[in-house]
Amino acid sequence: MDIILHPIGWVHSAENGPREDYWGDVVSEIHLASHFSPDTLVGLEEFSHIEVLFHLHGVDESAIVQGSRHPRGNPQWPRCGIFAQRAKARPNRIAATICELLSVEGLTLQIRGLDALNGSPVLDIKPVFAEFLPHQTSLRQPEWSHQMMANYFASGKP
Amino acid sequence: MDIILHPIGWVHSAENGPREDYWGDVVSEIHLASHFSPDTLVGLEEFSHIEVLFHLHGVDESAIVQGSRHPRGNPQWPRCGIFAQRAKARPNRIAATICELLSVEGLTLQIRGLDALNGSPVLDIKPVFAEFLPHQTSLRQPEWSHQMMANYFASGKP
Repeated sequence: MDIILHPIGWVHSAENGPREDYWGDVVSEIHLASHFSPDTLVGLEEFSHIEVLFHLHGVDESAIVQGSRHPRGNPQWPRCGIFAQRAKARPNRIAATICELLSVEGLTLQIRGLDALNGSPVLDIKPVFAEFLPHQTSLRQPEWSHQMMANYFASGKP
Repeated sequence: MDIILHPIGWVHSAENGPREDYWGDVVSEIHLASHFSPDTLVGLEEFSHIEVLFHLHGVDESAIVQGSRHPRGNPQWPRCGIFAQRAKARPNRIAATICELLSVEGLTLQIRGLDALNGSPVLDIKPVFAEFLPHQTSLRQPEWSHQMMANYFASGKP
């Protein structure tokens, strides 16, 4: 069963990769495909954050992990299934990241903190509703994931 | 440009739709496609929440909104672009929802609070990392969205 998608836009950024960490103050743009009208974005600027779904186009199909591996190949961290990680080399190669919306002008969005490389095809843009987020006090996650994320969204990229 | 995806699994649920609200205590299952091994889920049970990307297969292609409309057709709420809403009838028809992970057994996940109808093709499963969530105190969203969400994830479905 095939599900066929079309990019709704593309990421424009100075980030041509690779970059593992320090995405926090990366400012980039999404340019909506020219067949859309600015009408599709009306009211979006009332939201402080958006969730961007994008295709991890830089990952070769042959590199997709079908089983488990150590996150970032680090043997200090437990072997985890690919669906127990947010790693790039995943089936369907879709990323979903919440970032800060700085501005909307015509078909261009300026955003901060999106972990997408330049040229990434964008599949969807959704406003972030607090009601769709879990209560942070109810979250449980393993220690390796906190260690891995220590500098992921940190500011001051080297 | 076509991006071709394949379901990694399917939602099994008593919810055959339509349902607009009261998803909070809906318990459902995801059955991973049989070509995956349980190895792909190793370690997932250490997370309390997962984000599920799924295809809104019930939305006919001809129903996709390309511009703006009142959320839920309610004229009390402002006209918003389709990318300023989380409505189903959106380009690429992908939903992304965070829900509670109850159990993992073999290729079956039991979850609570997923707003997907029975039979929805699942495109990705990601563990929820607190570090990927915005600080809730920094979120800004318009009043209509709070009103619309009042009972969306409420318990006690009628």
